[in-house]
Amino acid sequence: MSNPEVAAPTIGVFDSGFGGLTVLRALIDRLPQAQFAFLGDTARLPYGSKSRRTIARYASESARFLVNEQGAEFLVIACNTASALALDAIQDAVSVPVLGVIEPGAQAADAASQTKDVLVIATDATVQSRAYTAASRARGLRAIEKACPLLVPLVEEGWIDPSSAAGAVTAEVIRIYLAELAAEADAHAFNPDALVLGCTHYPLLRSLFEAAVPAGMRIIDSAQAAAETAIRLFRPKAGHTQEAGCPILSTSLVERVGDHPAQPTRIRCFATDSVEKFERLGSRFLGRPVGNVELVDLGG
Amino acid sequence: MSNPEVAAPTIGVFDSGFGGLTVLRALIDRLPQAQFAFLGDTARLPYGSKSRRTIARYASESARFLVNEQGAEFLVIACNTASALALDAIQDAVSVPVLGVIEPGAQAADAASQTKDVLVIATDATVQSRAYTAASRARGLRAIEKACPLLVPLVEEGWIDPSSAAGAVTAEVIRIYLAELAAEADAHAFNPDALVLGCTHYPLLRSLFEAAVPAGMRIIDSAQAAAETAIRLFRPKAGHTQEAGCPILSTSLVERVGDHPAQPTRIRCFATDSVEKFERLGSRFLGRPVGNVELVDLGG
Repeated sequence: MSNPEVAAPTIGVFDSGFGGLTVLRALIDRLPQAQFAFLGDTARLPYGSKSRRTIARYASESARFLVNEQGAEFLVIACNTASALALDAIQDAVSVPVLGVIEPGAQAADAASQTKDVLVIATDATVQSRAYTAASRARGLRAIEKACPLLVPLVEEGWIDPSSAAGAVTAEVIRIYLAELAAEADAHAFNPDALVLGCTHYPLLRSLFEAAVPAGMRIIDSAQAAAETAIRLFRPKAGHTQEAGCPILSTSLVERVGDHPAQPTRIRCFATDSVEKFERLGSRFLGRPVGNVELVDLGG
Repeated sequence: MSNPEVAAPTIGVFDSGFGGLTVLRALIDRLPQAQFAFLGDTARLPYGSKSRRTIARYASESARFLVNEQGAEFLVIACNTASALALDAIQDAVSVPVLGVIEPGAQAADAASQTKDVLVIATDATVQSRAYTAASRARGLRAIEKACPLLVPLVEEGWIDPSSAAGAVTAEVIRIYLAELAAEADAHAFNPDALVLGCTHYPLLRSLFEAAVPAGMRIIDSAQAAAETAIRLFRPKAGHTQEAGCPILSTSLVERVGDHPAQPTRIRCFATDSVEKFERLGSRFLGRPVGNVELVDLGG
């Protein structure tokens, strides 16, 4: 018998916009007993073109909302920019374990790469932080990072169908960016065999990337990697050791998610602006209707 | 002899980002006796994808900064989105005359168009406001508006040289947007002969637009139109009557700008984020170095 008195723990998922819904989608499928609260800080997006100080302030306010107002007991920062520039600030702002997407992305690149040379594409701010370079280097990988600021607006415009004139524009933008990356790799005598999609919007362009990369190059989705890391944290195997750069969950939290009687997954979505746009675009990322999105004012 | 005790009046120019520097550029050239304070609300850009409520709050805070902190006696809202959605809110927030770009843009379209059917391209929020449609209709024009959200990031990425592969992408994006506009014009039996660039970023793509529009179609730059309107307000001719939708300046303000002894133009630029990026990109819009940009915190 299920016990309705025992509430399943809430996992908080945060992004500056909608892209992080791809992480939420993977978590829902694999952790059906958990409750979820998703916040998109849509009034202040994009983070990718802003400074570290501003990103840290916005992301900390968002994290506090999920923990203090929504009771989240574990946070996934499903935003590469916030993970790259503000993970420390978020950890200081809240008292629950926090997982970003950079370490899982670097770990997945390490697992996929034979040559140990990897390419990373991301927003301006993520690239300038060199967070992927640092996380890669800690694993013995070399990384070249490149900012691709046109890809987020192309995804939000819906220009993702390769058979259309609009999708052909996106394919050409990807070709130009990858050619610039390849030239830089050559100049540094790199031999890359993995490409990290370091922004949660980019997985929607996956088929265009697959058509554009050289044969044999593996494509790593940092959002998917973070979801898989989170699932491993909740499904520890015997003899499991801590993953580099990842938080440790309390035994009680893991048990409450793992052992809680199955119940309908409960998702609450919040946005700081334009809930209509969130409801419209969000379903594209979540792969199902996002339902009612609640407007929240973080004072920004 | 000039009298250093009499300070020239300060004109405040506001944009969500850098694009409004094209308006400032035109004003500096034509009103050399005025002082200028420019604010780019770069921490919260872009406004074009946000809701009316949020845009009104951000723009009002920005306007109050220019008037209350910098002593501006006249404001030019050099941002189509803020002009379209927040001009009333700004006028309520400050006690000085305020000029937006929508009315001057519609007026210039009226002057240029023979058929009285015009096309308007702008951001999502500007288009959804239907401000250009309303301002056009008040002049007996019919307007079709279209959001072109990819053009701002293309300009900010610097993909504006038509002889490069990157510029060819921008040309193709413009071709797709204009083809969609032409199809809509046909469907409504419009016969447009003017295209309003309803975003201060778009004038940097002027040569690409000139190559893409049908022969005989006039291109209207709303930023340039607003600057010309502001200059007319400061240079009234005898028998001059109030321009529709434009504020009235006090005789004393006009005289103080007009009669003040010439002095080196003084420009102070402020941004809410990333002054380095402002200094780097701003010069492209201003046509000269922007100088030191001061960081300001509007609490957002």
